[in-house]
Amino acid sequence: MTPAPGPDARRRIAVEPASGRFEALRAGAVAAGAEIVAVEEASALVWADPKRAGELAGVLERNPAIGWVSLPFAGIENYAHALDTDRIWTAAKGVYARPVAEHALMLALAGLRGMSTFTRATSWSAPEGHNLVDGRITILGAGGITTELIGLLAGFGCEITVVRRRPDPVEGAHRVVAFDDRAEACADADAVVVALALTPETRHCVGAAELEAMADHGWVVNVGRGGHIDHDALLAALDAGSIGGAALDVTDPEPLPEGHRLWTHPRVMITPHIANTPEMGVPLHAAHVERNVAAWIAGGSLEGVVDPVLGY
Amino acid sequence: MTPAPGPDARRRIAVEPASGRFEALRAGAVAAGAEIVAVEEASALVWADPKRAGELAGVLERNPAIGWVSLPFAGIENYAHALDTDRIWTAAKGVYARPVAEHALMLALAGLRGMSTFTRATSWSAPEGHNLVDGRITILGAGGITTELIGLLAGFGCEITVVRRRPDPVEGAHRVVAFDDRAEACADADAVVVALALTPETRHCVGAAELEAMADHGWVVNVGRGGHIDHDALLAALDAGSIGGAALDVTDPEPLPEGHRLWTHPRVMITPHIANTPEMGVPLHAAHVERNVAAWIAGGSLEGVVDPVLGY
Repeated sequence: MTPAPGPDARRRIAVEPASGRFEALRAGAVAAGAEIVAVEEASALVWADPKRAGELAGVLERNPAIGWVSLPFAGIENYAHALDTDRIWTAAKGVYARPVAEHALMLALAGLRGMSTFTRATSWSAPEGHNLVDGRITILGAGGITTELIGLLAGFGCEITVVRRRPDPVEGAHRVVAFDDRAEACADADAVVVALALTPETRHCVGAAELEAMADHGWVVNVGRGGHIDHDALLAALDAGSIGGAALDVTDPEPLPEGHRLWTHPRVMITPHIANTPEMGVPLHAAHVERNVAAWIAGGSLEGVVDPVLGY
Repeated sequence: MTPAPGPDARRRIAVEPASGRFEALRAGAVAAGAEIVAVEEASALVWADPKRAGELAGVLERNPAIGWVSLPFAGIENYAHALDTDRIWTAAKGVYARPVAEHALMLALAGLRGMSTFTRATSWSAPEGHNLVDGRITILGAGGITTELIGLLAGFGCEITVVRRRPDPVEGAHRVVAFDDRAEACADADAVVVALALTPETRHCVGAAELEAMADHGWVVNVGRGGHIDHDALLAALDAGSIGGAALDVTDPEPLPEGHRLWTHPRVMITPHIANTPEMGVPLHAAHVERNVAAWIAGGSLEGVVDPVLGY
């Protein structure tokens, strides 16, 4: 670890590179007492452009005095190559969880309620639809999105199963199941929601076995990363009618290419990675940066600290 | 009023006419202790076919001894011509409220979250979407659907306004507004949900003034009856961009004719009156009939009693 900088140095924060959210983040840092400086003079770096992850490693190599790096997203797989143990890394873990949880719940409800059919219809069609209320939902992951989703489900009377690495209790969940037993955890689920970090271990964690276990009318919802779902297994399950459908806010690759079968499948709904839109997310991100800059200056503990070994 | 029949006579119940839900209702009545008889021998009539409302008045004219009529739906405007004060009338008020409330919430979320765009897209599109969480929702009506919807919103942190005939308090609502002040109650609403009975007074209760008052991104959701919304005013508001869109489970007329502008409007989503599908609703209806038959036989009070003057 780089030696901890003194109080004056800690006040000197870089916010880079310029981006659409730059001004909001800068304002957040300043509100917390920061003096905004060039990265060469800074004790910490608030990385401001989610799309320019590839440049970060070079910036850090040239500026070893950076003691803390603030990353803009909750999922940091694009930054995995740059992670090191020489400094503190934070991610926006849980920061966007409430809008993302709302989107996940919307997708589950819309799928179960036949919206993939009805929104594309131009005439009165036959009844279809299944309830989520008083039904069964399985959530993969036990992070901020899951916490918020369980909160949104407060009035739904659902039986909630959470799948996590180690089956420690989760408030509001009726059952917690270890990651290796996730297929069993999906049994008869009306909805399966993917809301975890993408790591080598979680890649394709929803495959043939998990999809087969779900209720035949059940919908799988992905607000994690596209790589969590084995798309070949998904298309096979859709064609076999062994699930109700799939509602995907994330795909693999992303953007999903035009002409891909998922675009026009009658039982698939795609949203373009907008569970958390910039309009919803930038104010939440700026508030997170403001809290963390204040803590950094005060020598307190930061929120969203990343474990460089686990990768989240 | 017809004189109250004796205990033996009260046991004799007719379930007519034959329909898709006939067997389930018959089983519910029998489970409550009924002897199923022809309508000529019955003290009460469970009307079993929602589509054959027109025949009921004639049946009752020929069978004046019927002391109680059980109607299959919550909204009974199709039975208005037959209502009288010679006997007790019950409707399935609140019986289907939970699935309908779920559908209303789904439509509000899906509308605000851009699903009218995304579900019809065949390529990656620009971000759009607004939150309902921590937003403002206005519900027209204070019946069973509203009660259930407020329950489903428990974790959403919304500011909830309820509009009702008289502004008596509603549990869980932050504000209750009288029906005549409904336009003011829609001010800046992210979602306006129509969930009341259709009467001459409530016809077109959502018109230009109510739509204009909403937030520009706000969605109007109708799970009441098509006649509650002035469709000309709705199309004008959609064209002017003064609302975000409309999600309609009920239309006027119904079914909505092919080629109607609402089918293809980019900011409209139609579902074919399936907030409560037969699959969801028949078990709820049969359980309601079972409870009421048991109460009728025991001389107790029935649920869902209709006021023939108010018409609901």
